[in-house]
Amino acid sequence: MTSPSTPTPMPAAADACHLPAGFRCSGSTCGIKASGKPDLALFVSATPAAAAGMFTRNRVCGAPVIVSRARVPASGIRAVVINSGNSNACTGEPGIENARRMTAAVAAQLDCAPDAVLVCSTGVIGVPLPMDRILPGIPPAVSRLSAADLALSEAAAAILTTDSFAKLVSCDLSLSGVPVRVTGVAKGAAMIAPNMATMLAVVMTDAVLTPEECDHLLRHAVDRTFNCISVDGHTSTSDTVLLLASGASGGTPGGPDDFRAVQDAVLHVCRRLATDIIRDAEGASHFITVDVSGLATRTAAFRMAKAIADSPLVKTAIAGGDPNWGRIVSAAGYCGVEFDPACVSLRINGTAVYRAGAPVPFSAAELSQSLKADREVHLELSLSGGPSAGPESVRFWTSDLTCEYVRLNSEYTT
Amino acid sequence: MTSPSTPTPMPAAADACHLPAGFRCSGSTCGIKASGKPDLALFVSATPAAAAGMFTRNRVCGAPVIVSRARVPASGIRAVVINSGNSNACTGEPGIENARRMTAAVAAQLDCAPDAVLVCSTGVIGVPLPMDRILPGIPPAVSRLSAADLALSEAAAAILTTDSFAKLVSCDLSLSGVPVRVTGVAKGAAMIAPNMATMLAVVMTDAVLTPEECDHLLRHAVDRTFNCISVDGHTSTSDTVLLLASGASGGTPGGPDDFRAVQDAVLHVCRRLATDIIRDAEGASHFITVDVSGLATRTAAFRMAKAIADSPLVKTAIAGGDPNWGRIVSAAGYCGVEFDPACVSLRINGTAVYRAGAPVPFSAAELSQSLKADREVHLELSLSGGPSAGPESVRFWTSDLTCEYVRLNSEYTT
Repeated sequence: MTSPSTPTPMPAAADACHLPAGFRCSGSTCGIKASGKPDLALFVSATPAAAAGMFTRNRVCGAPVIVSRARVPASGIRAVVINSGNSNACTGEPGIENARRMTAAVAAQLDCAPDAVLVCSTGVIGVPLPMDRILPGIPPAVSRLSAADLALSEAAAAILTTDSFAKLVSCDLSLSGVPVRVTGVAKGAAMIAPNMATMLAVVMTDAVLTPEECDHLLRHAVDRTFNCISVDGHTSTSDTVLLLASGASGGTPGGPDDFRAVQDAVLHVCRRLATDIIRDAEGASHFITVDVSGLATRTAAFRMAKAIADSPLVKTAIAGGDPNWGRIVSAAGYCGVEFDPACVSLRINGTAVYRAGAPVPFSAAELSQSLKADREVHLELSLSGGPSAGPESVRFWTSDLTCEYVRLNSEYTT
Repeated sequence: MTSPSTPTPMPAAADACHLPAGFRCSGSTCGIKASGKPDLALFVSATPAAAAGMFTRNRVCGAPVIVSRARVPASGIRAVVINSGNSNACTGEPGIENARRMTAAVAAQLDCAPDAVLVCSTGVIGVPLPMDRILPGIPPAVSRLSAADLALSEAAAAILTTDSFAKLVSCDLSLSGVPVRVTGVAKGAAMIAPNMATMLAVVMTDAVLTPEECDHLLRHAVDRTFNCISVDGHTSTSDTVLLLASGASGGTPGGPDDFRAVQDAVLHVCRRLATDIIRDAEGASHFITVDVSGLATRTAAFRMAKAIADSPLVKTAIAGGDPNWGRIVSAAGYCGVEFDPACVSLRINGTAVYRAGAPVPFSAAELSQSLKADREVHLELSLSGGPSAGPESVRFWTSDLTCEYVRLNSEYTT
């Protein structure tokens, strides 16, 4: 794991990504998007897979969330069907019926029960799903299923909305000599806030896992990754992260070390997908890593990091290359955690700007230059004593707020 | 009081504003602002006034907040001294000493105790106050004190930072035949969030009130006005609202009806000042009134209204004239209040767009046209049943999010 004092590195050149054993997928176009871009993705396990899911905590949630949430954790999952271009959210009872019909149509093709199929939708809110396009699109999508790398790229592309690049990651490991793989795909670029984001992710592995193990692995990873990113603090209606384990590698975690290896691989895949969402944040010109340390609880550190990450004044300052540390310290001040301001220190890109509650002289011109030159920004706030101080830390990722974000989001539906 | 179903009207043409009896004030330039604009305001009561104050809840608060908070409620207050251009926040122990020296310098001129003087500062965070300019500026500011309307306008102008207009309001009433006046001045245009805002306000009355009555009146008004506005959700380090009662009119609330009349006048003055701050919100092109009704508690209604008002996606949609109601309903969904989505209805500028959890057909083109043509926007979200439903409502005011806001706040300190 990356140490809390080192910012997340820039992504390496696109790694080769492969499906784990037992999975096939496809990406195709059924005509939901006016642009004519791909909008239907299928992920299928040859045999019943163990599966777990985590979903948006928004009280107003999409119909696919309602349908899929009731079907996991489970041991007999065969497929995930995802459409982009329409979120099927705020569509009332007919929306729920449509989500069920999507899963039934896939199940009919795979010869399995409808509740062995999970469903996700992403796109505009409040518009009925065009079932006359989706249902005829499903048999061709099934006929295109393949285990090839190209199919994986096409499936990853078919779930995108305003994203500018596809997000997919593979991680190989070995369990008692048996090679095992964890592969994930995700989408998301805005309406991104903890718990969770307009964000879909499917993580697949060929390890042998129980539904309970899937659930545990997923919660561990999501709490440290997808729940630690924010573009705009707006929790969407559709957020879903699914983990499917086909067991097709035959690799079984034989003990705590093996299980830890799988846990680290799932964490790695989720962290890379989550930070890729921030790297693709709408209109953003900076990728910001916020490290908060020295708090008594992880919850307190999380609240403080989130308040900093969500402040429009912090985000606009960084967009302008302005080392305006007063906005960062004052955002921590209103997060609801009680603390002693005289114990707060802050570094921006490694430069100390505030120490033990008082300003530190620094070259604003030099720091501004570094903020303007570098896409990566590292904010480190630490507490050295007083109420709420302790050993806990949280790393949170966010983007800056630019005119381009405003422009993109002022012109979305009309 | 305005009924919850009617949006706040556009401000009338600037009303004549006068000081209440017993008060004098001045606005002058002591050289804090590089622009050479006025930056020092004084409000003085001829006799010891009853006073109360409400301050930012930010844990990181300005030195003037620390000094003034300790001095109210009280019955012997003589003056308020305010500088703009520097907030004296995050300046450590020397900052607190400087805030005390400002009050002592005013007290020496007025021949009173230093703790009979309150102090506020607003402007950039983390820069030591230029005491070599402020201290010499105080005797001339005292010599300019006047009860004339011009002095009130000058004082209101001297507390501004990024504001584009001065905020001042007067309200006359009668207590058992004795004429009484309530007059307030305020500043604020960004770093505005409930509890409270980069916002200073001084409300003065010549009614005869005790410090406890001042405190009660101020809390009642601020909870319904300054605590119900947000520009960017960033609670500042300096927010302060003060109420001073000189008693110079001789008008004393003789019973519950009289007290209610004073309460309504203070509420009126604070509501007008608070909404003027939103009308002056940095870069804003729309003034948005959010009415949330049908909740079991005022707290729940407040959380829901605030979540809608603070969502960058709601704010950018309105900036673009986009009736994107999915963003409004989904913001309510993540506010942390448990409710049944099937009981939610929403109107935008009087047009029903969502009813009992399902979309209502409407002309998006017409509604978009009304959003583009009119600076005033009215969002009405109501709950008709389910958990958390009840008789409570909250009115909240906010502004939209534009490129101009981003531009202004990307270029503030450097």
